[in-house]
This record gives sequence, C-alpha cells and structure tokens, in this order.
Amino acid sequence: MVEKLDAAGRAKLPQDLPDWSPAEGRDAITRGFRFADFNQAWGFMSRVALLAEKHDHHPEWSNVWNKVEITLSTHDAGGLSARDVALAKAIDRLVA
Amino acid sequence: MVEKLDAAGRAKLPQDLPDWSPAEGRDAITRGFRFADFNQAWGFMSRVALLAEKHDHHPEWSNVWNKVEITLSTHDAGGLSARDVALAKAIDRLVA
Repeated sequence: MVEKLDAAGRAKLPQDLPDWSPAEGRDAITRGFRFADFNQAWGFMSRVALLAEKHDHHPEWSNVWNKVEITLSTHDAGGLSARDVALAKAIDRLVA
Repeated sequence: MVEKLDAAGRAKLPQDLPDWSPAEGRDAITRGFRFADFNQAWGFMSRVALLAEKHDHHPEWSNVWNKVEITLSTHDAGGLSARDVALAKAIDRLVA
C-alpha cells in the first residue's frame, strides 16, 4: 500500500521539483518538455520508459512530434505519492 | 503541400480502417490499443515510432501503462490526408 504524500512532502515540492506543476483538477504533477524534433523527443521517452520500468512506476504521457507532456500520480494511493516525486526527480536528471 | 483527403477517400475510411474512429471536434482519426502491460505497450509504441520516422509522419499519442491512444491528422493539410491513412494502415499491420 502506497500512501499519499504528506503535508511536509507537499510543502517541499516547489523546491524539490521546481519545473513541475500541479495538474489541473486532480492530485498529480505535470511537466512539459520540448525537443528539437521527434527523434530527440523519442530518445527522451525511451529513457523515461526504462526509468519507469526500473521504478515499477509509470507515467501518463503524451507526445506530439517534438513535445512530451508527462503527468505523474499514483493509482494505488489515489493521488500524489513519494513514488511520483522519486520518478520526477529521476526524469529531471535526464534533462539536467 | 499535402492535400486533405477527398470525398472518395473519406467514403472508403470505414472499410479501409474499420478500427479507427473520427476524432471528436477535429478532422482526424483515432484508435485505442490495449496490451498486457507497459512492456508490451512500449514495444508497440517503439515499432510505431520507427514507422513514423520512415513515413516522415508522426502521431499524436498518449500512453497510460497498458493503454495507447493514437490520433492521426496532417498539420500541413489542416486535417486528414492520405498520409494519415497510410500510417494508420501500417500501424494496423503491426497488430494484425
């Protein structure tokens, strides 16, 4: 059982994940990425896919040519959990 | 310059692409796919990514774990074109 992120964890979000925003209308975080073209966007997505399998935690995401939009939330927790924060940090490191 | 699909091409769509539906509110077609898990969904997406690069025509798509939703439309034509039909048929062959 995964627990929702507590108040202390949420208070740290703007500092821990400055490039992520609260998703509209749900307990989730989201970040958009833009690349030079589809090749680069897909390369990034491939790295995220491997991260997701390693974390056993998967994004909701969409791609249109050079753009990738990622939303993270934890189904089992019914909202944002520490697993989302961990995956978001790992994704951020890919593009740092 | 890519031209929009003409009336004859549109009339054949239900027969040519029986698993695709008109996208809501825009001139595009859409199909949903469901797999056993993320691994299989990602494998399918990887094959579609290669097709897209080969066709030099890219989908708008989203993935949530085992589900993939693909929308095809041609930006340069401002709507559905023969390029969408060709890519949709190639995608259908992957899962036939």
